Parts: sequence; structure tokens; C-alpha cells
Amino acid sequence: MLTRIDHIGIACHDLDTTVEFYRTTYGFEVFHTEVNEEQGVREAMLKINETSDGGASYLQLLEPTREDSAVGKWLAKNGEGVHHIAFGTADVDADAAGIRDKGVRVLYEEPRIGSMGSRITFLHPKDCHGVLTELVTSAAVESPEH
Amino acid sequence: MLTRIDHIGIACHDLDTTVEFYRTTYGFEVFHTEVNEEQGVREAMLKINETSDGGASYLQLLEPTREDSAVGKWLAKNGEGVHHIAFGTADVDADAAGIRDKGVRVLYEEPRIGSMGSRITFLHPKDCHGVLTELVTSAAVESPEH
Repeated sequence: MLTRIDHIGIACHDLDTTVEFYRTTYGFEVFHTEVNEEQGVREAMLKINETSDGGASYLQLLEPTREDSAVGKWLAKNGEGVHHIAFGTADVDADAAGIRDKGVRVLYEEPRIGSMGSRITFLHPKDCHGVLTELVTSAAVESPEH
Repeated sequence: MLTRIDHIGIACHDLDTTVEFYRTTYGFEVFHTEVNEEQGVREAMLKINETSDGGASYLQLLEPTREDSAVGKWLAKNGEGVHHIAFGTADVDADAAGIRDKGVRVLYEEPRIGSMGSRITFLHPKDCHGVLTELVTSAAVESPEH
């Protein structure tokens, strides 16, 4: 079951400049940074609030590490802006399987590693009214009951 | 102070079809619907989670009521997808004034009425790394202390 808006993924040309914009304009601070070589991104997570399912909502700022990454290609085509949205779940495997059974294309056969050790998958935007949609289970233990 | 992701605004061609997609695919139910003639949209709010500042995070599905509305023009250019993101604050007037002082263009002179009687304003996407950004104060009384 999807129980929160986990994050909004925002593609940018320069991570440091964009982090600085969010800090000076809104006061949002960096909670975590990492490079995900598989996804081809350097990213910063800005924690905005905690959520009623025991998780949190973040902005995820994404700079491509190479032009031929998914985010790099998207940025070349669209320019800076919202790249995807992500819903949090205690069980990404079960939710991905259930959604696949409804005829929505799930982009990975098995979930992969996302920000902060989470397990993630993506749904095809053409099956989701134009919205690239991610499902996330945090690395921190989440109870399947909530 | 911006204390939550209030909503993600998603533009769609047909509100009923899109609501049905979110219901059958994810189990998200409609919390509220309304027509905002000033904004030129028919909209549905789907409540996803509550937030640590006493508010909540929603998906806001938006169908233009006329082609020459902001959302109608955006949809004709971009197709369905994420139209804007919104941060919640207890005091949209103070935050908008502070952000304007930092050189970011605030689109309304004074906040206008948004979903569920909230007071809203928007920041120019070209000043926000490509992200059309809304600031929202809910109609329900919010304490300025949290």
C-alpha cells in the first residue's frame, strides 16, 4: 500500500547551484547527498516534513553524471523541472507486482537500489497519464501494518 | 516558513478518467473536488498522508475548464504531467514577501483563493530552476509557531 509522497524528483543542470537556490529561497537544508552510478545521477535529498506513516517527504535534486543517463537525456529534451514523483510503501515488491497485474508497465524486473539504500522501481509515464512514477521502500525498517 | 509538501499539481485532459486511474492503480480516493473559475480548472484532491506540521499532502488533479486558462495552455504545449509543486506555510503573505525580496518573481500581488478555501500564490518557474512553485496556507487555522 502506498502511504506517503516520498519525494519529488527535480532534474537540474548544476546540483550545487540548485541546492543553494533551495537553501537561500526557502531555508531547506541538505539531508543527504550521494552519487548513484547505476542511475547516472548526483543527488541531494532535502527533507521537507515527516509523514503519518513514519516516513518523510523530500525534494530530490538530480544532476546527471553523464549525458546518456535517463536524467541526462530527459534534461536535454525538457530543460530543468520536475522529473518524477515517488510514493512510499512498506513493500515495494508487492505493490509493483499488484500494479503490473493491472497492466501498468513496471520498468524494472526487480527493484533496484535508490537514495539512502532504499529499494525502488518506476512505472512507465505513458501508463500513468504522463507522470514518471516511482515506488520506494526505505532502507529503515517499515512495519507492513501501518 | 514552508513546513510541508502540500501537494503535487498534475494536469490531465479528463479528470474523471485520471481520478479512476489513481483509484484503481494505487487505491487513492478523492478527498475533495471543486471548480475554480478564476484558475480555469476543475480539480480533485487525493489525500495521500498527513504531515508533521499538522497539515497533509495531496495529489491535485487538474482539468482545464477552458483552453485559454493557464493549465489549458500548459497542457496543449506539454501534454499530461506534473504542472506544479506546492509548499505549505502558516503564513503565505510573509513567505511570499520574503521570497519576493530575494528577487524571485511572485506571480500575484496578493494571494488568491485556491483549493478548499486556501490562500495561494505562485513563483515564476524561470526563477525556480524550471519548477512552477506554489505557496499555500490552508483555510483551517494553522498556528504560526509550529
